[in-house]
Amino acid sequence: MVVEVNRYRAEHRLDQQVVHWFLSKAGNPNISMRLWTGDEISTPGSRPVGCLEFRSRRAFLELLRSPSMGLGECYRKGLLEVHGDFLAVANEITAALVRKQANRYYGPKFRSLLHAIKVNSKNKSHHNVHHHYDLGNDFYKLWLDERMVYTCAYFEDPTATLDEAQVAKLEHVCRKLNLQPGQTVIDAGCGWGALAMHMAEHHGVRVIAYNLSAEQIDYAREQAAAKQLGDRVTFLQEDYRDINTRCDAFASIGMLEHVGLANYGQLGALIMRCLRPGGIGLIHSIGRSHSAVADPWITKYIFPGGHMPSLSEMMRVFEPHRFSILDIENLRPHYARTCATWLENFEAEAGHITETYGEEFVRMWRLYLAGSSAGFQSGTLQLFQILFTPKGNNKVPWTRKYQYQPNKRFT
Amino acid sequence: MVVEVNRYRAEHRLDQQVVHWFLSKAGNPNISMRLWTGDEISTPGSRPVGCLEFRSRRAFLELLRSPSMGLGECYRKGLLEVHGDFLAVANEITAALVRKQANRYYGPKFRSLLHAIKVNSKNKSHHNVHHHYDLGNDFYKLWLDERMVYTCAYFEDPTATLDEAQVAKLEHVCRKLNLQPGQTVIDAGCGWGALAMHMAEHHGVRVIAYNLSAEQIDYAREQAAAKQLGDRVTFLQEDYRDINTRCDAFASIGMLEHVGLANYGQLGALIMRCLRPGGIGLIHSIGRSHSAVADPWITKYIFPGGHMPSLSEMMRVFEPHRFSILDIENLRPHYARTCATWLENFEAEAGHITETYGEEFVRMWRLYLAGSSAGFQSGTLQLFQILFTPKGNNKVPWTRKYQYQPNKRFT
Repeated sequence: MVVEVNRYRAEHRLDQQVVHWFLSKAGNPNISMRLWTGDEISTPGSRPVGCLEFRSRRAFLELLRSPSMGLGECYRKGLLEVHGDFLAVANEITAALVRKQANRYYGPKFRSLLHAIKVNSKNKSHHNVHHHYDLGNDFYKLWLDERMVYTCAYFEDPTATLDEAQVAKLEHVCRKLNLQPGQTVIDAGCGWGALAMHMAEHHGVRVIAYNLSAEQIDYAREQAAAKQLGDRVTFLQEDYRDINTRCDAFASIGMLEHVGLANYGQLGALIMRCLRPGGIGLIHSIGRSHSAVADPWITKYIFPGGHMPSLSEMMRVFEPHRFSILDIENLRPHYARTCATWLENFEAEAGHITETYGEEFVRMWRLYLAGSSAGFQSGTLQLFQILFTPKGNNKVPWTRKYQYQPNKRFT
Repeated sequence: MVVEVNRYRAEHRLDQQVVHWFLSKAGNPNISMRLWTGDEISTPGSRPVGCLEFRSRRAFLELLRSPSMGLGECYRKGLLEVHGDFLAVANEITAALVRKQANRYYGPKFRSLLHAIKVNSKNKSHHNVHHHYDLGNDFYKLWLDERMVYTCAYFEDPTATLDEAQVAKLEHVCRKLNLQPGQTVIDAGCGWGALAMHMAEHHGVRVIAYNLSAEQIDYAREQAAAKQLGDRVTFLQEDYRDINTRCDAFASIGMLEHVGLANYGQLGALIMRCLRPGGIGLIHSIGRSHSAVADPWITKYIFPGGHMPSLSEMMRVFEPHRFSILDIENLRPHYARTCATWLENFEAEAGHITETYGEEFVRMWRLYLAGSSAGFQSGTLQLFQILFTPKGNNKVPWTRKYQYQPNKRFT
């Protein structure tokens, strides 16, 4: 009996020491860790914003074995619980990791290069898109803005609502593209069609919009018909590789993440074929400050086939065709806020969503939304808007002031 | 005698055919070519903006053998003459070449990679800088603006004068850096000190400015003393690799072109060491829309050791250290106009310059200034301003509107 107690105490001390070591390896985030024994441990002198509770030693060992995958898996299965403000905890953990991380360059870059072997074929792209975007329009309606825009918003004013910020984003894109009435625009990866409809309604252009998601395209068509924009916006359920229309402007908001490194050259060639010599294009995509492969848990459960490129990787779309890069803007803080707002909306509906999709689904999506917001907040993720034009085009605005003209209201 | 005449006629026809072939290979620019025989040949149906006159068959053969080097060499030696507006002819030739050129990617990229082997050592950098920037302040005074700014101007209004546009550029840089009174700024490659003095005078910051050119540093120190800015601006005749001050803002305008690909990692590491975590940096540099080595004639006579990087190459400064790129602006058309204005000023003083530096020097500089303007006009050259901050810095302006606030006057 005495032996048992001693053994228990020894294990106990060992567990505590391992947790301390783990916290220090993670950059000493201001959180505490509660063990299956009831012990709560935090970095001495820290003021924890929340607590990670491990329901068993096994959960903790899984986290040690593979921090990113382990965290996702344990939280998904309920072996790990988060107490306190979920987003605050996610922000603390991510910021501490960023502070702690050495700037390893060649290792992650090499793994990212290897990743380029994985080609997203048309079939695979269809599967990947279906996995995420065909979860049901009703699900996304619960927590997106009224126009169903599922990409980074643009909070012109930090106090703007999500609805206002999404319209401002659509308008920011249109202004950058310097749209003129009568032009033809390609929208590659159009989501639920908000940008295409905004362009047609407020800028008098004709839009041909592509998307692989059946549910999104159906919704977009209904909306366009209801707004009597059917003659100016065409929604096609086709792969971006099938785009073959000539256009004056090319916009792609939040698609590059799904294209995969191996297909960047093909995407550039396609834009080169479609965009008129005096045309202008904008690619809006999540990116990184260095080359690295996507988080394995996110790739497994949320975005199969996804890759967040560094700017040097993104240039593989443009440089082989000598596109002139006109302007790159980083909207990183805006995406942190966008994801945080989505998470708030999501939590408000978590009860309903659990009824339809189950507890595990809600936990996965909570982790994904909070993790994304924390990624942008900490700088592990960036959001780039890249404006470009074919080589030799001199019909470009003289300065960027035109992007900052007082905004018309689109409410 | 008859044989001689026939041989002459046959040669004559052959020369003409070769000129036609050459014009077509060059993308049929709207220029004519006058031969040593007096024949003038142009593309049928074209309206020549000017004429290239070959004084001998040998000059023409040299051009055929090596178009870029041959053109420079023949013009330098007076074996080739340009009739009509020099810049218009340069623009025509360059634009035609850009239209004609296939978008070869891997060949030029590979040659550019090889170029990275050439390391600009401190000695070599000193030699290179001395070659170009120590030609005499009096020479540069003849054709630069009143502040002696030898980099791309920013014509906020297309009708602005060069003086106005250079002040606007200085101010554009300061606004992007979001300077606050009392901050410390490093200016790496400060030329004649205009930016450093503008920052100290109008933004209340302390500037430490580096440059290898003895003549430029002497001039800058005199100016600072005359403006009573000596206590706020320090000019050091040192290599950028010797910079070791901590700073809130890091600016480098027109230096990266001289750094050489092999040293980009070192430059990034240096900025990482110097820039405070909440700091902000701006690199302003000539670039390209694709990777390629510099023109051999320009490298030989004008800028030894120079390299104009593509954006993917520039990222080698930033990505190893995970700097977050906040904003990239391309000022290509502004540099075309800047160089054109310098050329105008230069031509107005060509007589004086010939007296001091000789005919060959004037021809070389005319070709360099006109060629640069044509390079920017046609898109073979680009001008990037890259704004960046250390990873994880969230104290960045929320939008770019702050860059477009009504300008104070600095005249």
